[in-house]
Amino acid sequence: MSDEQVRQDQQQEVEQEEVVDDRLLRLAADFENYKKRAARERQEYVAFANERLVKELLPILDDLERALQAANEHQEATLEEGVALVHRSLAQLLARNGVKEIDTKGAFDPHVHEALLAQPVEDAESGTVIDVVQKGYTLGDRVVRPARVIVAE
Amino acid sequence: MSDEQVRQDQQQEVEQEEVVDDRLLRLAADFENYKKRAARERQEYVAFANERLVKELLPILDDLERALQAANEHQEATLEEGVALVHRSLAQLLARNGVKEIDTKGAFDPHVHEALLAQPVEDAESGTVIDVVQKGYTLGDRVVRPARVIVAE
Repeated sequence: MSDEQVRQDQQQEVEQEEVVDDRLLRLAADFENYKKRAARERQEYVAFANERLVKELLPILDDLERALQAANEHQEATLEEGVALVHRSLAQLLARNGVKEIDTKGAFDPHVHEALLAQPVEDAESGTVIDVVQKGYTLGDRVVRPARVIVAE
Repeated sequence: MSDEQVRQDQQQEVEQEEVVDDRLLRLAADFENYKKRAARERQEYVAFANERLVKELLPILDDLERALQAANEHQEATLEEGVALVHRSLAQLLARNGVKEIDTKGAFDPHVHEALLAQPVEDAESGTVIDVVQKGYTLGDRVVRPARVIVAE
């Protein structure tokens, strides 16, 4: 191997290392930037998710204010209609957002029910839900609030 | 340079390249994993943000159902109280989540108001808001809904 050859080899080696180092540095910089952007986006996603729900709640607040006004003016029929409307709107909003009422028919299910009381009952099988004190709800596959129930003993 | 020397140099070179390549591959793999996790977390953050709001809305739905029942049983006083309670709860929920009513006193502001009508009025300066058809709201620094107003001409 000539000196020239060795020099060229070394030169090439240095250049290759520089290329690889450069790729490493660039990748590391990309990674850092990505991390920062991801953190910022998480914040924005939360704000945006809230904004969408908040936007949907405003017409419900409007209807409630109209109902309140009807109450103040003792327009009972309008008030009753208003309350029915607001209830329907809010129930639909929650349903649209994946909220479902927890079923309480049949046997007590500790995954979705919370027993407040066990009562001896003649005409119900032991372990059956006999009354619902507070409705429960799921959001997707998560229990947002268990149904609070009374169970037959 | 002896043949042995050249062989060793080449060997070392290959090993160094492997180390750098290995770092590059590992960093690239880390980056990929991070991207996947970030995407998953974004989904979870949205679900979580919604879950918090949904959780806060459930007691309001409960109160609405009680008000509805009072309406069905023609307990007008209870119904009126119920509506006032629901209104207060929802207004407070929105306020807690950064929602603010847009001020409509004084001059028309195209950034936060939407003019539905311009009316000639004797006792108001031109460009003044004289009536609010629908309240507007901001969330943080964003206008969720402009206030719909009538302006003096």
